[in-house]
Amino acid sequence: MKKQNEHVALYTDKYEFTMLEAALESGVAHKKAVFELFTRRLPAGRNYGVVVGTARAVEAISKFQFSEEDLDYLGDFLKPSTIDYLANFRFTGSVTGYREGDFFFPHSPIFTVESTFAEGVLLETILLSIFNYDSAVASAASHIKVVAGSTKISELGSRRTNEHSAVYAARAAYIAGFDSTSNLEAGRRWSEIPVYGTSAHAFTLAHTSELEAFKHQVAALGTATTLLVDTYDIEQGIKNAIEVAGVNLGAIRIDSGDPFVELPKARLQLDELGATKTKIVLSGDMNRETITAITEAGLPVDSYGVGTDVVTGGGAPSCGFVYKLVAIQDDEGGMRAVAKKSASKASVGGKKTAYREFKDDWSILREVVVTDGANTNVSGYQALQTTFIVRGNLIELNTIEEARELHAENLKIAPKAPIEVDVISAEVEVNVADFVDNI
Amino acid sequence: MKKQNEHVALYTDKYEFTMLEAALESGVAHKKAVFELFTRRLPAGRNYGVVVGTARAVEAISKFQFSEEDLDYLGDFLKPSTIDYLANFRFTGSVTGYREGDFFFPHSPIFTVESTFAEGVLLETILLSIFNYDSAVASAASHIKVVAGSTKISELGSRRTNEHSAVYAARAAYIAGFDSTSNLEAGRRWSEIPVYGTSAHAFTLAHTSELEAFKHQVAALGTATTLLVDTYDIEQGIKNAIEVAGVNLGAIRIDSGDPFVELPKARLQLDELGATKTKIVLSGDMNRETITAITEAGLPVDSYGVGTDVVTGGGAPSCGFVYKLVAIQDDEGGMRAVAKKSASKASVGGKKTAYREFKDDWSILREVVVTDGANTNVSGYQALQTTFIVRGNLIELNTIEEARELHAENLKIAPKAPIEVDVISAEVEVNVADFVDNI
Repeated sequence: MKKQNEHVALYTDKYEFTMLEAALESGVAHKKAVFELFTRRLPAGRNYGVVVGTARAVEAISKFQFSEEDLDYLGDFLKPSTIDYLANFRFTGSVTGYREGDFFFPHSPIFTVESTFAEGVLLETILLSIFNYDSAVASAASHIKVVAGSTKISELGSRRTNEHSAVYAARAAYIAGFDSTSNLEAGRRWSEIPVYGTSAHAFTLAHTSELEAFKHQVAALGTATTLLVDTYDIEQGIKNAIEVAGVNLGAIRIDSGDPFVELPKARLQLDELGATKTKIVLSGDMNRETITAITEAGLPVDSYGVGTDVVTGGGAPSCGFVYKLVAIQDDEGGMRAVAKKSASKASVGGKKTAYREFKDDWSILREVVVTDGANTNVSGYQALQTTFIVRGNLIELNTIEEARELHAENLKIAPKAPIEVDVISAEVEVNVADFVDNI
Repeated sequence: MKKQNEHVALYTDKYEFTMLEAALESGVAHKKAVFELFTRRLPAGRNYGVVVGTARAVEAISKFQFSEEDLDYLGDFLKPSTIDYLANFRFTGSVTGYREGDFFFPHSPIFTVESTFAEGVLLETILLSIFNYDSAVASAASHIKVVAGSTKISELGSRRTNEHSAVYAARAAYIAGFDSTSNLEAGRRWSEIPVYGTSAHAFTLAHTSELEAFKHQVAALGTATTLLVDTYDIEQGIKNAIEVAGVNLGAIRIDSGDPFVELPKARLQLDELGATKTKIVLSGDMNRETITAITEAGLPVDSYGVGTDVVTGGGAPSCGFVYKLVAIQDDEGGMRAVAKKSASKASVGGKKTAYREFKDDWSILREVVVTDGANTNVSGYQALQTTFIVRGNLIELNTIEEARELHAENLKIAPKAPIEVDVISAEVEVNVADFVDNI
């Protein structure tokens, strides 16, 4: 069945298609090729990244076909013979990679495509788009989750990023340990993601008084709701909230002010009013640093709302993933390792297999990335790649819950300092710490 | 006609709907309300932002309706009476705002929604998502365009942001003065946006030699193509390029190395080979700073490719736009100005009209934002808001070319330092420089 309207295959850079045309001309299009997706470095201050996007990437590959309308458009700059090739396009190769929710490090081959050159090259842009955004959000979310400890966190950033990104940000943050999202479309698509939200300042302002607004909110939504208490004055807001909802009020939300002042004051006031079980939700420019400070001070907060910071990757809005040809079929039918030599962007050729080595306490010691033909003893190491697609057929696609569980397991062994990554090729062993500096 | 599958109305935070439910209960839902979309500040180092997203926002409003499937999903947490309201939902209010391509400053009311409270509140999330991303990209792109001068710039960042964001990034960058994009879906949707691209390192690596790769690229794409010369060694790459394509080769692309060394060397080599008209395209981690340095040094470059930096907003991936209720119908049928008092997030109530005052040389002196009822002489000032929707009917929707032209005109009068923004309310005049510091 050909998709008529989704245009997934056009979410692509033009040069993938001009390369295809030239590769059809030279015959390279039909040669076997291996492409790997990896990053050269992690953002400053992080010792790991979190792989998210795998399930979406595998789905995009399965939808990567051309409608009549797509072909009409591409016909404006491609030859009829190239259009003929695309008309029957369907991915027939194989894909392996890291599981969604797993950690990644510099040079981790998180997604490997083995196919013809033509099939592999056409997928480049959409695979990078998916992983660069989804994993940027997941990596930011995971680092926030770590510092928040057992305090709940809701992702409230939909309004701070493109409306489609927002949906995938919700998914990525949930996999990386957030507890809920504000985004309804995410909840509709993935029923396992809880959706959170009650009211904003506009609701309070629209009524003649805060007391009036709270009365109507409780009448409509019940006492388990969250009342936003900082529209005018927090202390008066809390007084009004408990007066209206009683001591069984679910929660109050504070969205402004200095948390070091307001949180202890609010908790004390709630307790004195008898609302000892009413929770405190804190939102407003929350990020890894603010939450670290609040956690270290032991301030009384039950739940965070995090918006802009998480959906824009916590200062690193793109993971820097690249997608590189590492091997191509030679004239004898074998595979030839290839790598560019460009200054500061050199890469290591050859298809890679990745392993993780653990310390005695099961924390991560190092990641070992072994190139085809290299001779290395990996006994006792954990193999990191699983198979997603074989000869065009879907083998395995994780659920969101599986990815979330894998991430939660990983957090128990998260590295507290940068780990060693060794890329071992047939010719030479490269320690990535040197590697990144030297090239 | 009701959209069945697009779910635009679910690209929304849950709390818009719980507020709706409570507002239906209190009666506030049906009161007239005014919401304004603005930012409190500009990113450091910028004296203006660029409005992009208006046409998309107006289109989203026109599509903001609920399918049966949407209503089924919302019925999980909303009362039947709320679902009844949504079943017939269609925006019936009016919208004014800044034209797409115009500048904005702190507190510029770039998009004003006048409708019932219910209609206005439901639109909050999608409007913010659109403007926060599109304008972030446009603002970054405009500041890059300024430093690039007359040198062409192509947006090549699709792979560094979510696949849907990528399409809108292409549109935003084009409006803000970029000359083309790599994104095919953008070219398909908006035929006025030129799409650029030829080949990547993978193409060269896939062939037995660079010479072989260039031969096939030129055979397939002609001598007007761009040959990527830095896969192995730039000097040898240029030699190979001219050997294969001759002195009429369209362009070479350099994607790595130190531009201060490579650009003059490449230009000299091309000229010595007789390829005096062959252009040089520079890509690879380009941003406002690198391009400023290259421009100031007068290095020979004909075109830039900019990727990550522009699609992630040049260090400011979200504009910080908020959408605030500023007035609501009172019990006598008049409008009551409202504003929250929250620490560091206070706002000025009342519907606002915006004007721009110019110096004698027509550069921008200041922006004046006048609240309903304030008495100010604005003769000789430029009124900034136009009408997009009246009582639910589309009045005006700019084309991409109109927005691009407006931006180009604006660049001629772009402020070289922060301008003054005065918010004049009935009670008090607030200079935003103080305003931002004090609240």
